[in-house]
Amino acid sequence: MSRWKPDAHGRLMGAAIELFDERGYDATTVAEIAERAGLTKRTFFRYFSDKREVLFSGADQLQRLWLEGIAGAPADATPLAVVTAGLDPVAEMFTERHEFAQIRARIIEANPELQERELIKLQNLAGAVERALVERGVSANAALLAAQSGVTVFHVAFAHWVEQDDPTAFRRLIAKSLADLRSLTAA
Amino acid sequence: MSRWKPDAHGRLMGAAIELFDERGYDATTVAEIAERAGLTKRTFFRYFSDKREVLFSGADQLQRLWLEGIAGAPADATPLAVVTAGLDPVAEMFTERHEFAQIRARIIEANPELQERELIKLQNLAGAVERALVERGVSANAALLAAQSGVTVFHVAFAHWVEQDDPTAFRRLIAKSLADLRSLTAA
Repeated sequence: MSRWKPDAHGRLMGAAIELFDERGYDATTVAEIAERAGLTKRTFFRYFSDKREVLFSGADQLQRLWLEGIAGAPADATPLAVVTAGLDPVAEMFTERHEFAQIRARIIEANPELQERELIKLQNLAGAVERALVERGVSANAALLAAQSGVTVFHVAFAHWVEQDDPTAFRRLIAKSLADLRSLTAA
Repeated sequence: MSRWKPDAHGRLMGAAIELFDERGYDATTVAEIAERAGLTKRTFFRYFSDKREVLFSGADQLQRLWLEGIAGAPADATPLAVVTAGLDPVAEMFTERHEFAQIRARIIEANPELQERELIKLQNLAGAVERALVERGVSANAALLAAQSGVTVFHVAFAHWVEQDDPTAFRRLIAKSLADLRSLTAA
């Protein structure tokens, strides 16, 4: 049985990530994931369309939290400040998922098809952030640039966060990544 | 017969883009492309692995030109200046391909699978730019940020370039996109 969260969804995620880590992603079956979680295949498919979804189901939650954060940003904040302030609720979600994220990152790194999926999810996220900025009254051009730059800040901070050992470091790494971007683009 | 370039490669590209535009991408076959170009299917497959490659073969040339541009940038330029200066040779290539690029953009816009391919090519490009910066002695973190930001500048300029009618505007749009990024990230 998995040592991860007690609910069925959490147990399936924990069992899957353990098995992907032990045996490799390709070699792991849905039946094995369900067995490790002490559940049936039928229960697995109630939560996930396939084993790949275990790795990507968090993207919806990430997007929801990011958009909530953007909606809550001060009305007078600059577009890029809105985007990065919107990552505060994401930092809280990530703190609890550090070990999962570390193993997940290794699995994706080793699998080009999963890398493509990750890229597409990230770009969908950029599109959602861009639309949220336009809804706040940001011009189309600034919204596109701020969303893409915000995803770059996120992407760089995330890469550093999974490589180091402190689960709570995400917020600090976002601030560092934003400061690095500012100094890089200073004329 | 296609009104495009006289060499076999150029004729195949021109015939393909005409047919994609007239009939749609999915409805066009390799046999029809070869026929329109006045060539055989066998000749088509000497240049392209499939019809999708007609739309993406330019990415290799783009990458080669961009990396040449980066290699030729002044030694004391900042990382982001290196990346954007590297786009000068790309602007020349693009000037000759504006009409192709406009039709291509419409086709990709209408097809999610092609959008994913485009995204992956763009991210491969970012990876190549990042490695070129590291080879120039830029730190890993700055190289990643500058490459991602450079691809954002490119992506935004490219989107504007295909939407407007002046084939020579790409260089100006890169400068505008870079200036917009600088003002967006100014603290």
